[in-house]
Amino acid sequence: MSAAPVSIDPAGGVWRIPSAAELDSHWNELEKSASGKKVVVVQGLGFVGAAVATALATAKDSTGQPLYFVIGVDLATPAAWWKIATLAAGRSPFTQPDPEFAGLLERAVSIDKNLVATASEHAYRLADVIVVDVQLDVVAGSDGLDGDIRVATKEYESALRSVGRGMKPDTLVVIETTVPIGMTEKFARPILEEERRSRGITSPLRLAHAYERVMPGRRYLDSIRKFWRVFAAEDELSRRQAGEFLASFVQTSNFPPTCLADTTASEMAKLLENSYRAANIAFIHEWTLLAERTGVNLWDVVDAIRLRKGTHDNMRYPGFGVGGYCLTKDSYLAAWGARELLGVESHLPVTLAALATNRSMPLHTLDLLRDCAGGDLSGLRILLCGVSYLADVADTRNSPSRIFAEAARAEGADVRYHDPLVDDWPEQSGVERVSDWRSNLGSHDAVVFAVPHGDYRNALPSDFPSGFVVVDAANVLDDAAAAELRAKGCLLAGAGKGHWRRMGWHTPS
Amino acid sequence: MSAAPVSIDPAGGVWRIPSAAELDSHWNELEKSASGKKVVVVQGLGFVGAAVATALATAKDSTGQPLYFVIGVDLATPAAWWKIATLAAGRSPFTQPDPEFAGLLERAVSIDKNLVATASEHAYRLADVIVVDVQLDVVAGSDGLDGDIRVATKEYESALRSVGRGMKPDTLVVIETTVPIGMTEKFARPILEEERRSRGITSPLRLAHAYERVMPGRRYLDSIRKFWRVFAAEDELSRRQAGEFLASFVQTSNFPPTCLADTTASEMAKLLENSYRAANIAFIHEWTLLAERTGVNLWDVVDAIRLRKGTHDNMRYPGFGVGGYCLTKDSYLAAWGARELLGVESHLPVTLAALATNRSMPLHTLDLLRDCAGGDLSGLRILLCGVSYLADVADTRNSPSRIFAEAARAEGADVRYHDPLVDDWPEQSGVERVSDWRSNLGSHDAVVFAVPHGDYRNALPSDFPSGFVVVDAANVLDDAAAAELRAKGCLLAGAGKGHWRRMGWHTPS
Repeated sequence: MSAAPVSIDPAGGVWRIPSAAELDSHWNELEKSASGKKVVVVQGLGFVGAAVATALATAKDSTGQPLYFVIGVDLATPAAWWKIATLAAGRSPFTQPDPEFAGLLERAVSIDKNLVATASEHAYRLADVIVVDVQLDVVAGSDGLDGDIRVATKEYESALRSVGRGMKPDTLVVIETTVPIGMTEKFARPILEEERRSRGITSPLRLAHAYERVMPGRRYLDSIRKFWRVFAAEDELSRRQAGEFLASFVQTSNFPPTCLADTTASEMAKLLENSYRAANIAFIHEWTLLAERTGVNLWDVVDAIRLRKGTHDNMRYPGFGVGGYCLTKDSYLAAWGARELLGVESHLPVTLAALATNRSMPLHTLDLLRDCAGGDLSGLRILLCGVSYLADVADTRNSPSRIFAEAARAEGADVRYHDPLVDDWPEQSGVERVSDWRSNLGSHDAVVFAVPHGDYRNALPSDFPSGFVVVDAANVLDDAAAAELRAKGCLLAGAGKGHWRRMGWHTPS
Repeated sequence: MSAAPVSIDPAGGVWRIPSAAELDSHWNELEKSASGKKVVVVQGLGFVGAAVATALATAKDSTGQPLYFVIGVDLATPAAWWKIATLAAGRSPFTQPDPEFAGLLERAVSIDKNLVATASEHAYRLADVIVVDVQLDVVAGSDGLDGDIRVATKEYESALRSVGRGMKPDTLVVIETTVPIGMTEKFARPILEEERRSRGITSPLRLAHAYERVMPGRRYLDSIRKFWRVFAAEDELSRRQAGEFLASFVQTSNFPPTCLADTTASEMAKLLENSYRAANIAFIHEWTLLAERTGVNLWDVVDAIRLRKGTHDNMRYPGFGVGGYCLTKDSYLAAWGARELLGVESHLPVTLAALATNRSMPLHTLDLLRDCAGGDLSGLRILLCGVSYLADVADTRNSPSRIFAEAARAEGADVRYHDPLVDDWPEQSGVERVSDWRSNLGSHDAVVFAVPHGDYRNALPSDFPSGFVVVDAANVLDDAAAAELRAKGCLLAGAGKGHWRRMGWHTPS
């Protein structure tokens, strides 16, 4: 006899995974509620799927009634069931500072009752539209060479087969996942068509690729509803239906969507736009190192350059590193798709080198710290402030703080962390959290600011003990504060700050 | 007995270089005109200096009178005298489509009589401000490795020494040239101070670096008068005087200038902003090649991505290559200055690799053409349309068309060129010009559009003979025109077009 399987949410909540019989019984109820309604199934209730399902549930028809009955589908596994359970309870699986999101989700679940969640594959049978938001993970070698790139296609294939097994002949399948180039036509289509053929379905498959641009933060929901979309399909009917579907929940009058010539173009667009961002970050990291060596404050320099609107105003600032689910991997999908799905060589040396540079960024901050500590990190008690990958956001996926913490600990440092938004750091469960950074500085030797959360931007020189080591990789301390800290014997360093000469910041040897 | 030395302007005009006695006599007249006026000397009458001198001459005081008597200085050499002679005759040394420029220049020379030009070093004696716009050329190895970078410092040193020999003790020297990091303090200052010391001047040197952002085209003059400036100086007085000087001829109320902490920062800002542009071009070239191999029209993809204002709207389009005086070399100045002047290693692998990628770009168009021609260029009669480095501009400096033409001729091709704005192509004097591209296609085998001049954007399918080879690296032909050309047996290829599959564009093997 074994304990009932459970699924644990990021906040530590425990959800019992129901039995197959319970799932079926729950499904029978859902099926009744869906009756007579236009049904959209969102497959995959991750960071994107949860927001897309909510956005779809808020879409209204001309009389103000909900346009869709939305069914979010994920797996009844320990890793995924909590997403279904929290959504079904009217709560977001992902905490976001979006002021509208939680209320609209709760209203859809509890009042309008047009947003439900299930692990039942039966959901696909009811769908008029199926939106695929299943994650497609990438594992790349640390050198970022494309020979090393591995894509987790097995899980994705399994998800697509479940769609093919259940979908109605005329259901529109919209792939929203960020996928390798060629994936929609060379991977998804054959799988879906094989499943349909085995069911005797001979009508043409309606298939489109339409990528999302969901961002964490205050505009989480609006990054779907009020933002530009790009989509494509190989046939006119799928193209038209996909365009109409997007227009039903995105404000396309203000944010006109782009229909590209084919799904490879649409897939490439998503990968290119994220690769561009990643490459621009890597580019400025090179200049950060040069600025530090030559005593130039690169923050001021970038401010001066960004005045050139339209050409230079997106130049990035020096920083601690790059995290999140997209910028750390999307370029690999282009290289992999070219070779594995489209049978051509890719040659993206700068694009792929950028990802390796970005992975190395937090190690530069570690270099600054090691230098401040006299060359040896062993036994150094470090308080790492900020472990999410963006300011004022709780998301820790692929956070550069993880790379920093792992490397520091490997050198024998004693690392604790603080983050006003992250109570639990699943990727570094061995690193203890302190609840207040100011009052805990005294029991550490050094503090590293990795993310410019509001709490850190309000730091005052009086917050720090005399003779402390302060490494500011997030530009939270200005030159005046730096001078004051220096005057009380603190040792300072900071990415791209460069004012060591004048302000007494520490000069790396 | 030898012929009198002459200087020949780009349009073929011949100017006799005056004797030393004539120069002195001319100077004596100028000196009288300058009497009692605030004098600005612009050293170097190249593409930047000519515009800066004109902008300064248009500056007015509160009563509407010219603020400055402006003296443009260059050398009495065959390479430079024509610039002095044309300016002194009230004409711009550089043809620009700027609707205001020529008129304002002529008015300053002929009516206000506050803009003159000379080769006499005596000019520096009168100057209240000396603006250094002398070019500093870079010669880098073709692999772009920084070990190969050579900077032509001798000529620059000579120019600075002439300033130091003549300047008044309190003259403000403003370096506008794009220079390596460290150049103002580690190179210019010691030279100027040495010359001043040998004259017994012991007062502090007033020295600033203030970089320009002059662009060719319709806004040539306004790119000085109505644009942001960045400057720096090491002492408060120089800093204040430089700021006031800039405000006297730049609309700083609308375009507030940035004063950076030191001249290394200001020098780096200029190099970084041009390096950013160059790196973004190299980045998109990688994706151009991938798009071509996978049949994606990258122009459409970039259009879709550029809708993301503020982060992606400066993404570059596929193109033929990069030319001009800045983007092709400025990154090298950062690497060189770090090592030679500031004594630190630079590590700018992506930045320097970008310049090499950009130099290779026109060779990709040659690859497309060679493929259309069955693999052999020998004897192929090519009409190269566009040899300037920007659309609707006559400037041919470091034009990628030169790289293309040289490589094509090295493979035995017979190259002629057309450019509506370039009558004479000094960098490729062996390549014959045709005056009208349309009527000359019949005597060629292939046409290559390298620059999107207006004339080419108006090209019609009926302009081309049947069965012709058309390579469009400038996006002047749309898909409809391509289809029509294909229907009449033309073979087509084009950078980043990718519509070979659908539109019958040629698929590179």
